[in-house]
Parts: sequence; C-alpha cells; structure tokens
Amino acid sequence: MTPEADRERERLARAALTRVFEPGDERGGRWLREIGPVELMDRLTGTDGAARALPGMTQARLAGHRLRAAAADPARDLDAVTAAGGRFVCPGDREWPSQLDDLGDARPIGLWVRGRSDLRLWALRSVALVGARACTPYGAHMAATLAGGLAERGWVVVSGGAFGVDGAAHRGSLAAGGATMAVLACGVDVAYPRGHAELIGRIVEQGMVMGELPPADHPTRTRFILRNRVIAALTRGTVVVEAEYRSGSLVTARNAQRLGRFTMGVPGPATSALSAGVHELLRGEAVLVTDAAEICELVGEIGDLAPARRGPVLPRDLLDAASTRVLEELPARGLAQVRDVARCAAMPADEVLGRLYELHSLGFVEREGDGWRLTRGRTREGPVRRGGT
Amino acid sequence: MTPEADRERERLARAALTRVFEPGDERGGRWLREIGPVELMDRLTGTDGAARALPGMTQARLAGHRLRAAAADPARDLDAVTAAGGRFVCPGDREWPSQLDDLGDARPIGLWVRGRSDLRLWALRSVALVGARACTPYGAHMAATLAGGLAERGWVVVSGGAFGVDGAAHRGSLAAGGATMAVLACGVDVAYPRGHAELIGRIVEQGMVMGELPPADHPTRTRFILRNRVIAALTRGTVVVEAEYRSGSLVTARNAQRLGRFTMGVPGPATSALSAGVHELLRGEAVLVTDAAEICELVGEIGDLAPARRGPVLPRDLLDAASTRVLEELPARGLAQVRDVARCAAMPADEVLGRLYELHSLGFVEREGDGWRLTRGRTREGPVRRGGT
Repeated sequence: MTPEADRERERLARAALTRVFEPGDERGGRWLREIGPVELMDRLTGTDGAARALPGMTQARLAGHRLRAAAADPARDLDAVTAAGGRFVCPGDREWPSQLDDLGDARPIGLWVRGRSDLRLWALRSVALVGARACTPYGAHMAATLAGGLAERGWVVVSGGAFGVDGAAHRGSLAAGGATMAVLACGVDVAYPRGHAELIGRIVEQGMVMGELPPADHPTRTRFILRNRVIAALTRGTVVVEAEYRSGSLVTARNAQRLGRFTMGVPGPATSALSAGVHELLRGEAVLVTDAAEICELVGEIGDLAPARRGPVLPRDLLDAASTRVLEELPARGLAQVRDVARCAAMPADEVLGRLYELHSLGFVEREGDGWRLTRGRTREGPVRRGGT
Repeated sequence: MTPEADRERERLARAALTRVFEPGDERGGRWLREIGPVELMDRLTGTDGAARALPGMTQARLAGHRLRAAAADPARDLDAVTAAGGRFVCPGDREWPSQLDDLGDARPIGLWVRGRSDLRLWALRSVALVGARACTPYGAHMAATLAGGLAERGWVVVSGGAFGVDGAAHRGSLAAGGATMAVLACGVDVAYPRGHAELIGRIVEQGMVMGELPPADHPTRTRFILRNRVIAALTRGTVVVEAEYRSGSLVTARNAQRLGRFTMGVPGPATSALSAGVHELLRGEAVLVTDAAEICELVGEIGDLAPARRGPVLPRDLLDAASTRVLEELPARGLAQVRDVARCAAMPADEVLGRLYELHSLGFVEREGDGWRLTRGRTREGPVRRGGT
C-alpha cells in the first residue's frame, strides 16, 4: 500500500473514532497512541476476543464502544463535511495545530473544520475570549470591545459560539474586520444555539468554525465542558470576561493555566455575581486586563510564537499561490484596505482577510487599525530576518 | 534635672518642631535623630552661627526654619490640644505606634491626637481604606460595606477624613459600632473639609483623630500627599477602593508596598476611569479583594501582630483599671453588647468600645457581628496562652 493510501485509511479510522469516543476520553487516547487508529478500529469492529484484548475496559463500556464503532460511517461523515464546505484535520496534517499535542492523551482525535483559512497559522496568533452566557450589558460591551481591539492588532479571537460573552466576542471581531474562530461542542454543520445560526454562518465565511464532534452530532453538558480544553490549548491565552463561581469559563481558564497558557480576567463591580468567578481567578495566578493593548502586551511577549516581532520565518517562495498573490498586492509603503487588495487580486474579501491573518502569523504583514502593511524593516520582494537568529 | 523634666523638655521641643518642619521632612528627621529635639530647637532659636552648624542647609531654608522656630509656642499648642480633649504623643511614649519607625527619617516628629483610646493598641489591628474624593455611588457603597465588615470582625478602619471613599469608610465603621481613625493633613482641632465637621466630631467621640500638624494649622496639597505615608505606615494594610490614574490613594498604596504592608484593591468596571488607578495597582503587586473577609484573611495571616490568634500577650494584672472593669463585665460564655457592658461597668458606651478594641489587640476579647466575647479557649480569670510558645 502507498503512503497516501495509509494516510487515507488512518484518516477514515480517525473520523470513525470521533463517533466512538467522547471528546477528551483519555483511555481512548492512550489506545490510539499505543496501537494507532486503524488497528484500534479493527479491534473495536472485529471479534469480541479482539476487542477484549484492549486493556482496562469494562464489559459495559466495551459493548457501548463496539456498538458505536459498528454504526460509524466515516466516508459518509467526510462527505457531509465536504458538502458543508469543510474538512477533517488530523494530527500529522500540515494544518494540524501542534499546540493541541499539549493535551496528551486528551488530544482531539481530529478536528472537523469549516472555513477557508489555515487552522495552524491562525491558531499561532490567537486569544480566547470566554465568559457567561447570561452576561450583563457590561460584559457584552467588554467582550465586543476587547475583540475589536484584538482584531485591530491582528490577533484571532477564539470563543465557543454561545450566547452572551462568546457571541459578543465573535461579533466584535467580525465587526472590526477581524478573524475569529468558534470551537463548537457539536457537529460543525449544526447551528447551536439556533439563535446563532446566522452568526455561525458568518464566522464560517469570514473566519473558522471547528469541533471534535462529527457532522450532525449534538452538544451535551459534558461536551461543553470538554470543548473548553480545546479552546484553552489552541490559543496563546484565555481572557475571562464575566463568570460566576464554578462556571464553565473558569474551567477553560484553569485548563489554560495548567497548559502554561496566559490566563487573564476582566474585572467588574465587586457587587456583581457575574464578576465573582473572574475575581476569584484574579486573586490567583490570572492577570487583570482592561483593554486589548494589555492582552497583546502579555500574549505577545514570547518571541517563539510571534514571528512578526522578528520578521518572516518562512521564505516567500514557500508560500502558496493565493498567499503570494495577496502579498504582491500590498503596497511597498503604507497601509492597504482588505477591499482594495481583494479587488486587485481578484479574490473574495473574506479569503483575502484569511490570507492576511496567515501572512501575519508567518511574519510577512502587520495589521494597524483598519489597514494592513508589509512588516516594517522588510520589503515585499523577499524575507529579511531582523535581529536574533 | 529629673528624667521626667527631661521628657517634658523633649516633648515641648518636639511640639515646637511640628511647627518648624513640614511633615516628612527627611533632613529635619536626620538632625532630630543626630542631635535630638532639644538641641535642634536650641540651635534653630540660637545665634546664626549655631544654626549654620546644621549640615546641608541653604541660607534661605535656614532663614525660613529660624522664623518658624522663633514663632513657635509649644506650650500654647499643647494647651490648645488639651482644651480640645486631645494630647501630643511622641516617640518613646508608651502609646507611640512603633510601626511608624519604619518611615525612618520621615517618621512623624510627634502625633497630635484626639480620642480616648490607646493609639498603639488600635493601630495594631487596623486597616486603611482609601480612595477617590469624587467617588461613584459604587465606590461609596463598597467603602461603607467593607468598613462595616471590618468593624464586625474587630478591625480598626483608618482613613483620611476626606469626602468620598474616606467619609464612606469612616461612616461605615461608625454605623457598625466599630472603631475608626482619621489621619488629618491639618490640625486635629480643624474641621477640614468643613462639610465633615460633624463626622470628624463623631470620630473623636467613638474613635480617634490624629495628625502631624499642630493645632489650628491648615492643610496644603503637599500635606495631603505626605499624610498618606502615615496612613500607610500605621496600618497592617491599605485597601484602595476607587482611584484614577496618578491619584493620592495610589501614593498611599505604593507607600504601603514599600513599607512591606499589604496592598489591596477593590476592582470595578474596566470602563470606569475611577477604577483605572486601582486596576493598574492590581496588575502589579496588589491583591484583589471584594469583601471584608478577604481583607482579614490577608492582614490577619501573620501571627506576630495578631495576638488574638494565640491568646493574650499581656498578663491581666498589667491592664489598667478601666480595661480590667470592661473585661470583668464580659460574661464567661457567649456574646455581650457594648451598651450592656457600658451599663454594668458604669462607663460611657464609646469608652467601652475603645477599651474593647484595645483588649482585642491584646488578645483578651473577640468581636463577632454586633457582640463581643472573651477569646475562646481562655476564661476571664486569667490569660491562658494557647498553642505556640
């Protein structure tokens, strides 16, 4: 069998396994690591004896897994995500965000993704904004303002697509012509919550929507909680805007802390129950932030993941055709608007925006307010490494 | 000359020097340390040659100091403070709060004090609540609530007697039947601000009013700023409730930090300019607090200044007559109200309250909500050291 065919069998097996194991199942993750996805699916769909050879599994759970494995139809799921304009991204793929490997055996089996940009590149310069569904007008205002400010500084805003703070964060980024990613606790073709169907559609167009659950799958309480670890692992840091004691947003923040990501909180009145969880966090390790500049100062301080600070990390001739085209349409000096670049490059504005964020992660361009420019200290003609090694 | 006469000469000289040097004058503090108050006054009021022997002084400043020294009439000032029911407390006095010595050469020359309680004992269990004069209703609410909560836990609330947060803090403590101290930037017989004349009168009755300036002296901008170092040094910690960037309250907080005291801040909306200074502080070393329990948890954690945690540190037979009387009127078990103790001991309620706070600092009693009890684990009959050595 060719290596491509191997990759394909593995991709099918991983797609099937997203139907078998719940997100974050560490036992499943261990088997996956030990015997690989193809062998794991073979055992789960083979004889009873083969499945029983999997260590540490009760009869009842084994039966459940075997039923789900037998019912899985990964080819159909892959077709469904393709029909929705999406794809299935696996560990080992060029687009796989390697920071998710920090989750160990709780690493996602794969990610179902909709949106035209490069997941890995976007995640490199991303910040999570999370908070209460039933937020106050103050919380919604702060989420939208921070998201807008992050967008203006070229940072991708990641959230969970929920009502309240999540929605305000996505909208704030979109409104500022920014890049935003929604990590869902259901299939990426499911509009949940229903009231956000239009917003999620807009995020697919201008940003990215992703999740661990296969097409058409529905959210559960546990899935919401476990989704949060993906948000935490994917981003440079997590900002909690409003959260009560014991809220899911605090779970995301603590996940982020454990993973060595930055954890931040937006203060509110001490009299507000919706700020009590944030204040608890701020009495611990989290850093108090009140505007986007403070967030960027923190998450941008480590050079290794912020190539823009040092100039491009990839030679220009390794860029793909579309990115090269976008780069060529930027003026040698000064700022350009997305719509002007789109017109000159004869590409849709949303795609140009996605490419600009990728080029930003690679250090070729910078965002300033509404406009984009070539990274200072280099020309469009070729990458010039500045400082360092 | 007898030692008492020496003390008296020294006290007169220090009282005079509070008219000569501005609060916190470190050069004056150094001379005071090097040659003592009596010799310093002698040189300032003696021949030109004697004064010139003071090192590091310009002609102009020397002339100013000599004019003020010549005009000083400490006997009249001491009479004035006595007439106002007050006293002048000096380093070396039994009532001198030795934590002020942490200010080094900026230590007050002496403190003019009104109020019937023991300054040293009250300061041992005190917390400063400071903040903006032009505070929001939220700031006033938080100051009053925190002060009330501190009072209910037996802590003395220290502030600056100003409008806004200061006033709300004093009132919150008074309203909860608590002990409060105002550190003024003017003479303790001057009602400043005028609108707080009644409040300051009430603090003299139920609490204490003090300052470095001699009777009838008036506040200046510089005096307000320098007063803050006394608030910071006197207390176990400073809580800033609302403060804009570059406000005087932040000076108090930074003084507290430098002196190794606890520094705390009450968060507010990130959109409020009146919380911006507090948030700046919280992004540094200050601890975020939202209620009195969190403040007490922090300032009460070091045992050396919180004898109540270990039981009394002074044998009962060293207590003065009034404190002994108050202690004797507390029931062997359960809580007593201030008014009941006052009736039984035939003492004014305000004096009983002052004594109870002193006994609290000494570890004999505890406050719980509205009532007072003997420290648990010991009887009224005699001190019993618990735990430790």
